[in-house]
Amino acid sequence: MYEPTKKDKFAFGLWTVGNRGADPFGPVVRPRMDPPEIVSRLGELGVWGVSFHDNDLVPLGASPKERDAIVARFRKALAASDVTVSMATVNLFSHPVFRDGAFTAPSFDVRRYALQKTMAAIDLGVELGAKIFVLWGGREGSESDAGKDAVEALKRYREGLNFLTHYVKDKKYTLRFALEAKPNEPRGDIYLSTNGSMLGFIETLDHPEIVGVNPEVAHETMAGLNFYHVVAQSIEAGKLFHIDLNAQKIGRYDQDLRFGSEDFKGAFYLVKLLEESGYAGPKHFDAHAYRTEDIEGVWQFAAGCMRTYKILQHKAALFARDKEIQALLKEQKPTPPYSRKTASAIAATRYDIDRLAAKGADYERLDQLVTDLLAGARGQTLSAS
Amino acid sequence: MYEPTKKDKFAFGLWTVGNRGADPFGPVVRPRMDPPEIVSRLGELGVWGVSFHDNDLVPLGASPKERDAIVARFRKALAASDVTVSMATVNLFSHPVFRDGAFTAPSFDVRRYALQKTMAAIDLGVELGAKIFVLWGGREGSESDAGKDAVEALKRYREGLNFLTHYVKDKKYTLRFALEAKPNEPRGDIYLSTNGSMLGFIETLDHPEIVGVNPEVAHETMAGLNFYHVVAQSIEAGKLFHIDLNAQKIGRYDQDLRFGSEDFKGAFYLVKLLEESGYAGPKHFDAHAYRTEDIEGVWQFAAGCMRTYKILQHKAALFARDKEIQALLKEQKPTPPYSRKTASAIAATRYDIDRLAAKGADYERLDQLVTDLLAGARGQTLSAS
Amino acid sequence: MYEPTKKDKFAFGLWTVGNRGADPFGPVVRPRMDPPEIVSRLGELGVWGVSFHDNDLVPLGASPKERDAIVARFRKALAASDVTVSMATVNLFSHPVFRDGAFTAPSFDVRRYALQKTMAAIDLGVELGAKIFVLWGGREGSESDAGKDAVEALKRYREGLNFLTHYVKDKKYTLRFALEAKPNEPRGDIYLSTNGSMLGFIETLDHPEIVGVNPEVAHETMAGLNFYHVVAQSIEAGKLFHIDLNAQKIGRYDQDLRFGSEDFKGAFYLVKLLEESGYAGPKHFDAHAYRTEDIEGVWQFAAGCMRTYKILQHKAALFARDKEIQALLKEQKPTPPYSRKTASAIAATRYDIDRLAAKGADYERLDQLVTDLLAGARGQTLSAS
Amino acid sequence: MYEPTKKDKFAFGLWTVGNRGADPFGPVVRPRMDPPEIVSRLGELGVWGVSFHDNDLVPLGASPKERDAIVARFRKALAASDVTVSMATVNLFSHPVFRDGAFTAPSFDVRRYALQKTMAAIDLGVELGAKIFVLWGGREGSESDAGKDAVEALKRYREGLNFLTHYVKDKKYTLRFALEAKPNEPRGDIYLSTNGSMLGFIETLDHPEIVGVNPEVAHETMAGLNFYHVVAQSIEAGKLFHIDLNAQKIGRYDQDLRFGSEDFKGAFYLVKLLEESGYAGPKHFDAHAYRTEDIEGVWQFAAGCMRTYKILQHKAALFARDKEIQALLKEQKPTPPYSRKTASAIAATRYDIDRLAAKGADYERLDQLVTDLLAGARGQTLSAS
Repeated sequence: MYEPTKKDKFAFGLWTVGNRGADPFGPVVRPRMDPPEIVSRLGELGVWGVSFHDNDLVPLGASPKERDAIVARFRKALAASDVTVSMATVNLFSHPVFRDGAFTAPSFDVRRYALQKTMAAIDLGVELGAKIFVLWGGREGSESDAGKDAVEALKRYREGLNFLTHYVKDKKYTLRFALEAKPNEPRGDIYLSTNGSMLGFIETLDHPEIVGVNPEVAHETMAGLNFYHVVAQSIEAGKLFHIDLNAQKIGRYDQDLRFGSEDFKGAFYLVKLLEESGYAGPKHFDAHAYRTEDIEGVWQFAAGCMRTYKILQHKAALFARDKEIQALLKEQKPTPPYSRKTASAIAATRYDIDRLAAKGADYERLDQLVTDLLAGARGQTLSAS
Repeated sequence: MYEPTKKDKFAFGLWTVGNRGADPFGPVVRPRMDPPEIVSRLGELGVWGVSFHDNDLVPLGASPKERDAIVARFRKALAASDVTVSMATVNLFSHPVFRDGAFTAPSFDVRRYALQKTMAAIDLGVELGAKIFVLWGGREGSESDAGKDAVEALKRYREGLNFLTHYVKDKKYTLRFALEAKPNEPRGDIYLSTNGSMLGFIETLDHPEIVGVNPEVAHETMAGLNFYHVVAQSIEAGKLFHIDLNAQKIGRYDQDLRFGSEDFKGAFYLVKLLEESGYAGPKHFDAHAYRTEDIEGVWQFAAGCMRTYKILQHKAALFARDKEIQALLKEQKPTPPYSRKTASAIAATRYDIDRLAAKGADYERLDQLVTDLLAGARGQTLSAS
Repeated sequence: MYEPTKKDKFAFGLWTVGNRGADPFGPVVRPRMDPPEIVSRLGELGVWGVSFHDNDLVPLGASPKERDAIVARFRKALAASDVTVSMATVNLFSHPVFRDGAFTAPSFDVRRYALQKTMAAIDLGVELGAKIFVLWGGREGSESDAGKDAVEALKRYREGLNFLTHYVKDKKYTLRFALEAKPNEPRGDIYLSTNGSMLGFIETLDHPEIVGVNPEVAHETMAGLNFYHVVAQSIEAGKLFHIDLNAQKIGRYDQDLRFGSEDFKGAFYLVKLLEESGYAGPKHFDAHAYRTEDIEGVWQFAAGCMRTYKILQHKAALFARDKEIQALLKEQKPTPPYSRKTASAIAATRYDIDRLAAKGADYERLDQLVTDLLAGARGQTLSAS
Repeated sequence: MYEPTKKDKFAFGLWTVGNRGADPFGPVVRPRMDPPEIVSRLGELGVWGVSFHDNDLVPLGASPKERDAIVARFRKALAASDVTVSMATVNLFSHPVFRDGAFTAPSFDVRRYALQKTMAAIDLGVELGAKIFVLWGGREGSESDAGKDAVEALKRYREGLNFLTHYVKDKKYTLRFALEAKPNEPRGDIYLSTNGSMLGFIETLDHPEIVGVNPEVAHETMAGLNFYHVVAQSIEAGKLFHIDLNAQKIGRYDQDLRFGSEDFKGAFYLVKLLEESGYAGPKHFDAHAYRTEDIEGVWQFAAGCMRTYKILQHKAALFARDKEIQALLKEQKPTPPYSRKTASAIAATRYDIDRLAAKGADYERLDQLVTDLLAGARGQTLSAS
């Protein structure tokens, strides 16, 4: 019942199940897995897609020949396991050269190197069939604002993004970009810190039509934002090109926990929204297993991400056919568009605001019904009705 | 030296110095002050502008005659004190009728009443000379997402805003709107929770050219965002129409503290940015005195907001002519625009990334110099040099 | 199955279901309910206990005669509904006299008045059968630390608490105190800001044996602390005298949401701990209905708090008899006590730490099983087995 | 004027200036420095003390002979530079064997190995003259509370600590322990998450008299707590055995920033408290340079920590002799101790609470004077008076 299918379009990054458990206070605890091996295991679990940073697949400094051999081997693994490349991205944050940014680095050469590296990563992604290219500017930020003018930095950022969209157009790639925001970590503060600020920024680019967002549960939650609201704005703006699913507690280091393992109710509204909105992109898990786990725990973790999604998908279906719940939902009839006549009519109406204010919204009852539904304390039997 | 002048364009809301000190755990502690009295005291302090919600000036339910008498008296006070109306806004959050939103209320009648009230508030603002109209949707949000579809709510929100921009255009008002975001409080989560999400939303409106943002220190800081970065994005996008200055600790209830009384360094970068960017709008303090204070403390509070701004303005000037600091700043030469040739050239270059990575950024030294500057431990004598 | 019973010892404060929905941005939305009426409704819902601040029951300034009449009427209502007074407390935060603290107020007279008011509240509580007296120092704190020496303030705080424990002993009351911490709101920062700091402080009092803690979900969660850990420390120290159940998002204003409506998993571990530890005190809901609700919503809210507790109580029972889960739990055999011989033996042992490090903890699997259990996706059928 | 002296008792950990700039998204950026080299550079900067984890000095797995050689060389460097070992500690968090805790690990063997390692680290510290031994239980916690019973874990924790205090007593060491709390990172939640909870826990140990606390700015600030209040409680309880100075933004990953580089005002109250309370222990900087820095930046960082402390020390002196500020401070006359007579007298007094409530506290004015003082906008000339 809760088994993943290809139709679910579940995807994992190579770096997610491949995460080796290092953290700021301790080294790796799990052995390295080879990308083809990861693909094979993902295929067995029923996963549809895999994603990667350029260097998850091809090590920095590999020769063209080495690169091609790696790509060929990876392609074979994909075919063998019927796994798709759902997205590609570029690592602009690990090498020390990026320690003060990639597209916003003060150094002209670092910025050009970032373009070189990204163009190559785009080529790699396209070669392997990726339709989405995520950009996360993890080092685009500051600890001290004394040294970098933030207005200038945004101009540099835009120049970099424009360059890349022109490159993709010039190459006639069908690739679309998805920008990923994060408030902080590894920088003290990262520029364009929320998904909302990315939506604003996109409209200032040369080719906004091929640039959307990749909101991540953990990143918006770090700032205490309501992720369901964040995704709703992205969908409503036609900009949800990709999504990073995981879990996180508010106001903490980037946790990347198993999907649904925190804020179960919030995860429910998110799944409900994705399922009901017609979102057709990858459902991408950008998470990793606890450092306490060995390899076996990693696969439990991966299976758990998908299982919880499926459980919540089922809850959303129950919600839709729960008569008591549905009876409490209110239709939100559109506000009339402006006309001089309508404005006059509205201005002239006497609204009995005390009467309008008197009726409660029944949200406590509704929210408790949802609690019951999520807990399996109601609705299990609905499937029979 | 730190005395405010009219040129500083400092402004206070009637509700800020008029705040009576009530909070969720206790009632008011200070007497009500009449708007003309407030204007008179602000004038004495050297304040340039005053702002108001419709009901700060004209009580809900006042007759047209009462309204006109209030307006006349207020206008006289403004003239007598040489104080300008710097901004007007509408209270769509206090009356219980708005308890589930104004423009996003499920009730069709509540939404139309919100339009009625806002049109009247716009008329009032325009009549008193306001050029900016702030909209803060304090009740546009939810505690439980079971009852309100967030995608639908955003559509309702847009319909409301579009209606109002058409109204302003139709009336030939020169008024511009400034949207104010807040992550939460009084709602569990407020829609369009950050200034960035407002920037994204504006681009989806019928008349984005007359709609900008009103970022508030406290609101963005509640979510832990870097306010200097937030304002930089707004300025760079040409959307900083208004600003709300105050202070706040991260991850707390909305504190609205005296400007500069928290995160002194952050306040410095903000002032430096406002002064150097050519921002010409009101410098509006949306803050209030501690509940521990009596009326005398309120005026100390107001004077303190402006004094700290002036101190930081002076520090920004010192920063600009501090040779040791300036020598550490790096020019950020633009990234080249895309051309096939440039792309090829970049792709063909061998960047010595280890060499590029070797040099530190000197930010610790620079940040310490700023600390010294802010502490008066350097730079005081610079004015002589 | 999820109906509350007296044995559950569920309790509500008069101010919780009596909350009228005012917040910093809007006035009350619900009518006042009389204490006897509240008691009657609580009784109908199956609630065991009721608690109150002195002024929830007896208005400030009531004459002795008025007080006695109120007490008599309340006592009658208690008897009629078979509801117990589970706890009493004192309001040392609403009246402006306390705006800079009660026991830590700089004013000697304010501190003595606080003692007078608290002694009277203790008498009132004892008269009505309370065995627990909660003290929450909501105004004991600061916005600016310039004016109050925190070391001195703690000495004043201790003097106040010592005075009251001596009073209770002298009166031969069997009453015990439970101290309630909160990090901030209504003060910028409140002294002794976490339950942990209260545990430390208690040990410095004259009579620590009659002073314990009253941890509150919302208060510890505001600071992002793990409430299950907080309560575990209190229980392990023999200091859990009372508990305030509700829900809250991290890093926000004090929300006092319906129990279990946030962090469902955290609520589960809390209920499991209370049920399995032998905690025999009141399960006290210190929460209130959303401002969107009318009176009907208030009772839905109250019923929901208890229902969710009962659901989680049942889940805890399922956890205890779920064989797959139980098989994953590890016994935590005690560490040996110190002796010179044991120390030498330990020092001399060669631990194969790489081998010890190799085995994963299976926590991803376990946590997913708990997710399934909480979602009703496993374990429902266990009751049959 | 702001030069450090030995009397200041400034100290740095080997791991602080030795931090190589790795973070969760990138590897090291700075070369390794040898402990004797670090000591030499610290000595040149005027630093009084150095601290270390066992493995900062002696690598895990070193033979007794290697260890002794390292110790001898280190001792020589200390003598040559006139640097003292101010504190020693043990690394119970890096090796994978500790991934589920050290003293709270479910594994009996891991817990005994943790004792073995800690006894050796104590011996090492004592040998090198340390009088304080810090214990930070970075891995004592959980991501999922399903697998570890927190009550049991606290019992294990206590057993471990008791074992070690007995060891120290048995060895006749004069060493005292200082427990360091942290809310989270690297674990999802760490047990005994705040300094306050450590104070509570200490009282349950066998030898509380030799166990105190080591509060850290960053750790308490992560939870949004007021660090000045935290340290005040520690001092007032006689438990401030050590202190970790750095800077941090609320609700973020552990930043360990240069002292005073965030929350300048908070840092001022802290320095003022340390200076005025008679605290005689090390002033230990547990911080590191930004990843953007090279080695030169590291030493700028270290000098900056001390310089800012000295600036604030000077500001505290100015505060003490600023007449306008001093005139606003209120004496906090003790509350009378309990006697039946005093209680009766208090009960019988009629306090005019409205009159007592009328006078404001002048905190806005006072806080602004402190702002001016910290900004060098007042008080610089006081030194002449």
